[in-house]
Amino acid sequence: MKAVRFDGRLRLISDAPVPARDREALVKVLCAGICNTDLEITRGYAGFHGTLGHEFVGRVVEAEESSLVGRRVVGEINAGCGNCGLCHAGDSRHCPGRTVLGIKGRDGAFAEFLSLPARNLIEVPDTVSDEAAVFVEPLAAACRVIEQVSIRKSDRVAVIGDGKLSQLILRVLAVTGCDLTIIGKHEEKLDTAARTGSRTIRVDRALLESSDAGARTLKISGDERFDVVVEASGSATGLAMAISLVRPLGTIVLKTTHAGETSLRTFPVVVDEISLIGSRCGRFRPAIDLLEAGRVDIGPLISHRFPIDEAVAAFEKAAAPASNKVLIRMP
Amino acid sequence: MKAVRFDGRLRLISDAPVPARDREALVKVLCAGICNTDLEITRGYAGFHGTLGHEFVGRVVEAEESSLVGRRVVGEINAGCGNCGLCHAGDSRHCPGRTVLGIKGRDGAFAEFLSLPARNLIEVPDTVSDEAAVFVEPLAAACRVIEQVSIRKSDRVAVIGDGKLSQLILRVLAVTGCDLTIIGKHEEKLDTAARTGSRTIRVDRALLESSDAGARTLKISGDERFDVVVEASGSATGLAMAISLVRPLGTIVLKTTHAGETSLRTFPVVVDEISLIGSRCGRFRPAIDLLEAGRVDIGPLISHRFPIDEAVAAFEKAAAPASNKVLIRMP
Repeated sequence: MKAVRFDGRLRLISDAPVPARDREALVKVLCAGICNTDLEITRGYAGFHGTLGHEFVGRVVEAEESSLVGRRVVGEINAGCGNCGLCHAGDSRHCPGRTVLGIKGRDGAFAEFLSLPARNLIEVPDTVSDEAAVFVEPLAAACRVIEQVSIRKSDRVAVIGDGKLSQLILRVLAVTGCDLTIIGKHEEKLDTAARTGSRTIRVDRALLESSDAGARTLKISGDERFDVVVEASGSATGLAMAISLVRPLGTIVLKTTHAGETSLRTFPVVVDEISLIGSRCGRFRPAIDLLEAGRVDIGPLISHRFPIDEAVAAFEKAAAPASNKVLIRMP
Repeated sequence: MKAVRFDGRLRLISDAPVPARDREALVKVLCAGICNTDLEITRGYAGFHGTLGHEFVGRVVEAEESSLVGRRVVGEINAGCGNCGLCHAGDSRHCPGRTVLGIKGRDGAFAEFLSLPARNLIEVPDTVSDEAAVFVEPLAAACRVIEQVSIRKSDRVAVIGDGKLSQLILRVLAVTGCDLTIIGKHEEKLDTAARTGSRTIRVDRALLESSDAGARTLKISGDERFDVVVEASGSATGLAMAISLVRPLGTIVLKTTHAGETSLRTFPVVVDEISLIGSRCGRFRPAIDLLEAGRVDIGPLISHRFPIDEAVAAFEKAAAPASNKVLIRMP
């Protein structure tokens, strides 16, 4: 079968074996999305070699439970060992022995077929399109923010970054009715963000990348600092900006996975007693519910569509600053 | 009056004016303790110039409320503006206009007299000695940890650092009955810590100061990582160690106020969804209650006592690695 593999360089091969994992379901992939994590992996993050891709919708073609066969599904990407305390508690996201679709120890979704345990699969309602269903995984990651932090309508919340994940986080936060500001460097992306009713602040690259960029530079006074700041810029210096933007006793949610070391002044975290919460994968159900209810519109977030035969070009497009979500369609 | 001042260099002067702050109480200082923050200030931290000292017990000599006069008191060190939302909510610790005794905009306790608003003063029970009362402020900072994080008896908790604050945190945590480990580099201090029933791990200076020091080097396997890690080492690299020691979804409480920048790998915080909570000043009442109930024994933590006339020597002694709490007694 066709598969987009990374083994030090990215390439499409046409003779990949169809995955055959014992007792797992086999899924024919319909459509998949390129995530920043995929791009990071091609730059060496996570040390993964294999078939990339973890945002997908597909149709089950083989499964032990015959009722699953033929269903259109999305899939939780963390496959736990099934035996540890975390797995028994129903949360394989932190199982120390987990594999992760297209990220760790398990081939991913940029292929004609993928394999996942049946318990990872969730049926997609008919009213949710294939393209919307591809967003379930990143939208779940966005929903994870409100799973971890209780956001009140009266809260002033800032999102740093205007990329794909930030845009989804903004849409999830908009559902809470809180007061929203997005800080980014791309005019067009900020325009897209503004449609959610969010205030936008444009910063230039140099500002976003200087570690002392913060409240003063953005002309945000002490009183105007934010109750919650979600850092999803993907930049090494986004966290320093977040620290300078959050109020005393406020909360920073950290989404950026930056592979290298970050230089940081930590004493404001102590003096202002800031809470910093790392945030990764969310549960799929709330994300599916939001899409089914039409409360999150992902249409404006798709910038390009490519067939799998043009996957390498799709990756190049996804890496361009102006791009939004790039989808790969299977034959 | 005599006062220990820092104005770029530390010195004792004998002609300091007795403080006269409008509507505040005047307190004759009986005894005061040297904190690491005092030492940091003499190295430039916080940019404070003036009379140092914020851990004290004293006797009220002047106050608008005459019932206060003659009382033996300790004092909350943050003096809020009295007008902002935080002050109205009874928490001046984060008032943006606050002054802080001996740290920010307000002369401190290494002097014959100090001034604080009457609302900051709390009477000390007769059963708590002067020397124990000096520990109320740092013990309150230690109690702040359990004010912020709910510690269960089943929790495995590590404290990084074996200094004065770490020893107090250890004693407060011991009251919760949790499973305790302290990680430090001074054999004698670890011996003192062991008396609380805590496990001790000795690391050498080089290990504590290498940013990749962590679970592997300490021979702590993934399963043995801690539910909660309190980082109070005072070292720039303590936080990196804390990140490597905490379990997925665990909590780090950050006490270390390090003035410079710290180089840090933040991606484990995201991938393992760690919570990092900055922790500074606590409320005095729980600390006084612990001392009154005899649940925290501060005796082993006092290493030296000096009269104020020898304050500069006292600071030198306090900075020595083997020292514990150094007290300054007033005439």
